[in-house]
Amino acid sequence: MKTHVFGARLDRRVLLSTLAALPLPALLRSTAVLAQDAGSPLASWNDGAAKQAIIDFVRMTTDRSSPKFVPPAERIATFDQDGTLWVEHPMYTFVTYSLERVPILVKAKPGLKEVEPFKTVLSGNRDEIAKLTTPDLEKILAATLTGMTVEEFKAEATNWLETARHPRWNRPYTELVYQPMLEVLRFLRASDYKTYIVTGGGQDFARMGSGKIYGIPPEQVVGTASATKYEYDKDGRPTLFKEPKLMLFDDFGGKAEGIHLMIGRRPRAAFGNSTGDQQMLEYTGAGDGARLMMLVLHDDAQREYAYGPAQGLPDTKVGTFTQALYDEAKKDGWTVISMKNDWKRIFSFD
Amino acid sequence: MKTHVFGARLDRRVLLSTLAALPLPALLRSTAVLAQDAGSPLASWNDGAAKQAIIDFVRMTTDRSSPKFVPPAERIATFDQDGTLWVEHPMYTFVTYSLERVPILVKAKPGLKEVEPFKTVLSGNRDEIAKLTTPDLEKILAATLTGMTVEEFKAEATNWLETARHPRWNRPYTELVYQPMLEVLRFLRASDYKTYIVTGGGQDFARMGSGKIYGIPPEQVVGTASATKYEYDKDGRPTLFKEPKLMLFDDFGGKAEGIHLMIGRRPRAAFGNSTGDQQMLEYTGAGDGARLMMLVLHDDAQREYAYGPAQGLPDTKVGTFTQALYDEAKKDGWTVISMKNDWKRIFSFD
Repeated sequence: MKTHVFGARLDRRVLLSTLAALPLPALLRSTAVLAQDAGSPLASWNDGAAKQAIIDFVRMTTDRSSPKFVPPAERIATFDQDGTLWVEHPMYTFVTYSLERVPILVKAKPGLKEVEPFKTVLSGNRDEIAKLTTPDLEKILAATLTGMTVEEFKAEATNWLETARHPRWNRPYTELVYQPMLEVLRFLRASDYKTYIVTGGGQDFARMGSGKIYGIPPEQVVGTASATKYEYDKDGRPTLFKEPKLMLFDDFGGKAEGIHLMIGRRPRAAFGNSTGDQQMLEYTGAGDGARLMMLVLHDDAQREYAYGPAQGLPDTKVGTFTQALYDEAKKDGWTVISMKNDWKRIFSFD
Repeated sequence: MKTHVFGARLDRRVLLSTLAALPLPALLRSTAVLAQDAGSPLASWNDGAAKQAIIDFVRMTTDRSSPKFVPPAERIATFDQDGTLWVEHPMYTFVTYSLERVPILVKAKPGLKEVEPFKTVLSGNRDEIAKLTTPDLEKILAATLTGMTVEEFKAEATNWLETARHPRWNRPYTELVYQPMLEVLRFLRASDYKTYIVTGGGQDFARMGSGKIYGIPPEQVVGTASATKYEYDKDGRPTLFKEPKLMLFDDFGGKAEGIHLMIGRRPRAAFGNSTGDQQMLEYTGAGDGARLMMLVLHDDAQREYAYGPAQGLPDTKVGTFTQALYDEAKKDGWTVISMKNDWKRIFSFD
């Protein structure tokens, strides 16, 4: 994190309170400067190594006279979602959704009320819920994210996404998207890059609203996927039933495997924020020509969160950024994005 | 098949020999007429119900004033490959590739020489090879299409596609593509449809050259897929190894399942030619609004092949078109394309 510009950052709240105290002509001039800034492709980024890495990469791969020019058809960029595009704390959004479905599930299947791990979830005891093991969590995910038709799931998840609120900001999860990353997505697309989400979270869940939130259509969302089964419903209509059977585990090495299955080409650029993204970045970096690998570091407790062993902070088990990952990034020339130093603002509502 | 125009078809060879005998001014006029025809989006189609169904569908889904208008983002069209986009007889191309890899496989693993079903394939006895069971064939497919890195597979399959020749035409398989279907692909793309291949054949195999052959990028090819495994090679480079483990069986109901996994939306249009495409067409047709479902009928033994129970011909087990499928098409308003009557020419070299 020592590679980043610490001093030159403009505190937006200080700026705003200063603006409020200024006479009108000066205010108009300042607004003009802000507007000009807003028109640049990475308006919410502070100048520094991270912003420059993105600009340099796009320039060298899209300039026909560059030796590192990449034909438009090969311009693929992949983005982890949780912690890279939107907030993942205190818990991954798809897991929060899954936990909140448990009471509804138990209403439909009252037999589960006294069965673990559902009993613990129903207790509402946060400490006990936090202690649930991975197999417990997998049981809950399977029980709440499968066992219905894809249309039923879509209706339920869409409704939840529209109504649920994040406990810290009391805003819909879909607003807790990093404005600087939205700008990267748009900048890459404007440069003929196809942008993909490659998430360890549920694929069907991540596809809900991906178009509205990120401008990424469902067919460009790769995620952990359960199998579906083609069936006919009672009226003889064809339907796809979500089975409790894991098909693609899209995390760690599975991200590279998922990229091969769903995209079939090696990305030119990859963005992540945790050890679950390590292999996706390695796979991207192992290709020839220009490649861009970036990791978002959550080091801004004030505006968002700070966590992870790479900063000497506790491992929260949600978006773990280990020291080994940090060392690999330095060794392999991946760029670490400091939320605190590289981002002028975190959210569009900031 | 009685719904098609029989009489009005112009025989191209008769036309060409007539042209050769004409004085120059008449020839120039005729050429002008041909050129005009060639400029229309479906130049290789005879007028009739099939051509009209395509034109009507595109018109009603792209005209903003139409009650059946479809927003561009939702314009998805899926195409079976074998027998729908290119020749599938006497054997699916990916199976031919697999059989031709057996001697190379046995050279690397001599122990397989005396082991069935490899022994039968090595014998070259066509009658015996034709009698191989489905489990035998699956063994051969697994042994020849997996067990190497994705890069190795790509290099081998690309080389084969460039050098192998179809026994009947003595041309590369990649030239045995139906010109009328290439025109449909282009017409749909020009109308902002995203075109996908959805094949029962191997996904990695179908992705080789899909861009060059059909203008379809690898990420828009869905097929039967084996799992890959993320590993590091002896030099520590990340690599994806093709495992002999079936992940997605993309045929019959699996086509609808594969579409959900890889695209995540219901297609607006679907094209097939056999019972393996039945569920893809049903799934497409079960959506609301305008939908287009079409089946290619191989009824042209002279210019290509004629086969299938729906015409009272033997079931060759390659691209089976049953009477039941034909009945379902009539009942559900799917359009059957007669190669003999609807297509002016079959191949670009005709």
